[in-house]
Amino acid sequence: MSADSNPMALYEQLRAQGDAVREIKAQKGNKADVDAAVQLLLKMKADYKQLTGQDYQAGRPPTDAVMNDEDHDDGDDQVDPWNVSTSSAKGVDYDKLIVRFGSSKIDQELVDRIARLTGKTPHRFLRRGIFFSHRDMHQILDAYEKQKSFYLYTGRGPSSEAMHVGHLIPFIFTKWLQDVFDVPLVIQMTDDEKYLWKDLSLEDCHRYAVENARDIIACGFDLDKTFIFSDLEYMGASPSFYRNVVKVQKHVTFNQVKGIFGFTDSDCIGKISFPAIQAAPSFSNSFPQIFGDRIDVQCLIPCAIDQDPYFRMTRDVAPRIGYLKPALLHSTFFPALQGAQTKMSASDANSSIFLTDTPKQIKNKVNKHAFSGGKDTVEEHRKFGGNPDVDVSFMYLTFFLEDDEQLEKIRQDYRSGALLTGELKKCLIETLQPMIAAHQERRKLVTDETVRQFMTPRKLRFNC
Amino acid sequence: MSADSNPMALYEQLRAQGDAVREIKAQKGNKADVDAAVQLLLKMKADYKQLTGQDYQAGRPPTDAVMNDEDHDDGDDQVDPWNVSTSSAKGVDYDKLIVRFGSSKIDQELVDRIARLTGKTPHRFLRRGIFFSHRDMHQILDAYEKQKSFYLYTGRGPSSEAMHVGHLIPFIFTKWLQDVFDVPLVIQMTDDEKYLWKDLSLEDCHRYAVENARDIIACGFDLDKTFIFSDLEYMGASPSFYRNVVKVQKHVTFNQVKGIFGFTDSDCIGKISFPAIQAAPSFSNSFPQIFGDRIDVQCLIPCAIDQDPYFRMTRDVAPRIGYLKPALLHSTFFPALQGAQTKMSASDANSSIFLTDTPKQIKNKVNKHAFSGGKDTVEEHRKFGGNPDVDVSFMYLTFFLEDDEQLEKIRQDYRSGALLTGELKKCLIETLQPMIAAHQERRKLVTDETVRQFMTPRKLRFNC
Repeated sequence: MSADSNPMALYEQLRAQGDAVREIKAQKGNKADVDAAVQLLLKMKADYKQLTGQDYQAGRPPTDAVMNDEDHDDGDDQVDPWNVSTSSAKGVDYDKLIVRFGSSKIDQELVDRIARLTGKTPHRFLRRGIFFSHRDMHQILDAYEKQKSFYLYTGRGPSSEAMHVGHLIPFIFTKWLQDVFDVPLVIQMTDDEKYLWKDLSLEDCHRYAVENARDIIACGFDLDKTFIFSDLEYMGASPSFYRNVVKVQKHVTFNQVKGIFGFTDSDCIGKISFPAIQAAPSFSNSFPQIFGDRIDVQCLIPCAIDQDPYFRMTRDVAPRIGYLKPALLHSTFFPALQGAQTKMSASDANSSIFLTDTPKQIKNKVNKHAFSGGKDTVEEHRKFGGNPDVDVSFMYLTFFLEDDEQLEKIRQDYRSGALLTGELKKCLIETLQPMIAAHQERRKLVTDETVRQFMTPRKLRFNC
Repeated sequence: MSADSNPMALYEQLRAQGDAVREIKAQKGNKADVDAAVQLLLKMKADYKQLTGQDYQAGRPPTDAVMNDEDHDDGDDQVDPWNVSTSSAKGVDYDKLIVRFGSSKIDQELVDRIARLTGKTPHRFLRRGIFFSHRDMHQILDAYEKQKSFYLYTGRGPSSEAMHVGHLIPFIFTKWLQDVFDVPLVIQMTDDEKYLWKDLSLEDCHRYAVENARDIIACGFDLDKTFIFSDLEYMGASPSFYRNVVKVQKHVTFNQVKGIFGFTDSDCIGKISFPAIQAAPSFSNSFPQIFGDRIDVQCLIPCAIDQDPYFRMTRDVAPRIGYLKPALLHSTFFPALQGAQTKMSASDANSSIFLTDTPKQIKNKVNKHAFSGGKDTVEEHRKFGGNPDVDVSFMYLTFFLEDDEQLEKIRQDYRSGALLTGELKKCLIETLQPMIAAHQERRKLVTDETVRQFMTPRKLRFNC
């Protein structure tokens, strides 16, 4: 089939010509060359539109489930593993993200089913749509109903010693899943990734991995059911893990990671091959000490939605190497103190509440930096009411205040103007201070020996 | 600086536009598009020539020491890790290769120096220019003179159970080096590479690695000084090895491996990152069981010249990650029975003498397939003499016949016509048959336990 009648072929031509144009422009080519290259590109775009009825979009081939999600603007929302931003004060439009990523909404039916199967009240993150999207969760539950268990996999990129409260979200929820489903859990610390992406030494990245593991353990995970591993250690401790990495690496091309992650020719080969290392823990035989050589134990990955590109790639590869696709539960982002346009970032001290903050620091940060949905004066506020939808303090309360009725009352009172911004902030401060203090207490009790135990490859308790 | 006056910028444009043209052609774009793209390319090439005074060549940027060796035609010689071919019956022009690769010739002075330092007669591969090129060998010897030792690293890609006599060349020579210098040796079996490049399962590649190790051990390596490792095993057994892999991966871009190895966007990410895995054993702290955390033990790599691209890359990266550059000794190729235009290949049974061949098979193959430099009739041969320079049987004798005088007599007699082709072949057959039989005998004595011992990470004898 010639490109005249083959959308994919024409798409590939356009991609290549687009690269050529960008290169010529980047290198400040002379005007005639730029014009000629652009003319050709425009002509090819017109051909493409005529053939497919659609506008050509970089990174969105006419077919191919793996690549159809990236480089696509929904308003100004940008969501990938390295960037999250939006122009809306309410934060990213998650309903649109579900459509774009091709995942499924966590609806009331699914929440009810989890409640029914586990016999537990659904976690507030489920009740409040903080975990809002999934892939194949019904498949996990179908199997679970038939006494066929699964395992959990989540992770963290240890880019510094400092973790903030936003980092806790997947771990708080994963701990709950572990408790209510009674399943084993593996937690990947991607210290190799941080070394590849950041200007840090291997030694520092590994040290951060161990320090962060301490905070993760302080979330209360069950030693008998939890294995925490650093890539820099576990890769060198498990031929089975490396075998799965190589299997994935054989079945993903540079074109694919370029489409999914936006890598360029100037990226180092470590970044280019890294996605396979985040993919491999999705397959149970990467952990022979837990699952032997079984490949039939499905994996469920709770993570923030920005990590989904890794697992779309993983799900695309899985059947081609004879493995089960991992299922996913996606959370929204934890907003920065300054507003929901970006997520909380450890590299900006004022945007974050750190797990090491004192009660005083928490109070000051919330009072000084938390973006308010209130009115400018008390009078106006009393008259017109505040807007909890853009108020960061209220958003944080939806994450951390357990009592649904109390939260709803705060929402209504804030909207009506009965509750002032200062009072709302006080409410948040009084929720965060004991929560963080308790975390700090638990962390103190995590000894080096405990960390070592969690990070030692070993058998876990697993009923299946 | 605009591309009009910047050779590198123009080179990058040309590269991108070249990719675009290839893509459009590959996808069978319509004629007008192809023409437009090609016209632009030609114009840019003319600009490039005007600016640099040189013809544009893909993969040869105007500057950049790492990339200036590939995709370069010297006559018809092609030499890279996956292809070796030439149009000359004498084989590749190795003097030109030295210039192209920027290595140094192994001259008589170096051979004499090795003899003086070790107190041994130089190996026939050195006496006869079979190991013909080096990098930094004088540095190795300078240090050795000052009682500072080094270690040897060589390897094999196990693509099948069958090894042929050509595969033995680096191992025969490496064993000699190990004996005369009394140094430790690591041998990498790149089973992961073969999985990535070939249509083979991981299990088969690993099995071939172990089977090939048996043949390598049969060359007589000293268990106390030799560690043989499969990547699929050792990567999962040594965090130190993986750390060095990641270090190299951080310091090499896709652009670089594209220039050095000719990778494309359609290659899998495993191939793209693999060169780091072949690089890592060049650094002594990849083997803490042997060298602890020392990084000051220099590495000497005996290998066929087609492996040099991996180590040019390694030498480029080494100082940037704080390591010593490995030194190299390069061998010529072992020619196919059909002639020196290509090297012996395990995938063509008739081009190779296998280590498993019977005396009868050896006799038949040499008689039937070995390309002859003799004349068509006995009368002509007696009158005009034969040409040993293109005669494969004679070439093989230069590899395997130890006696220099006997070899020289054969050469002269063949050239004069005193020795007939049949007689020359008989001479080779009588050299190969006992050599291969002895190898087979030694191989039989290599037990599973012996293989296991060689392949177990452990301390080696090392005086330094």
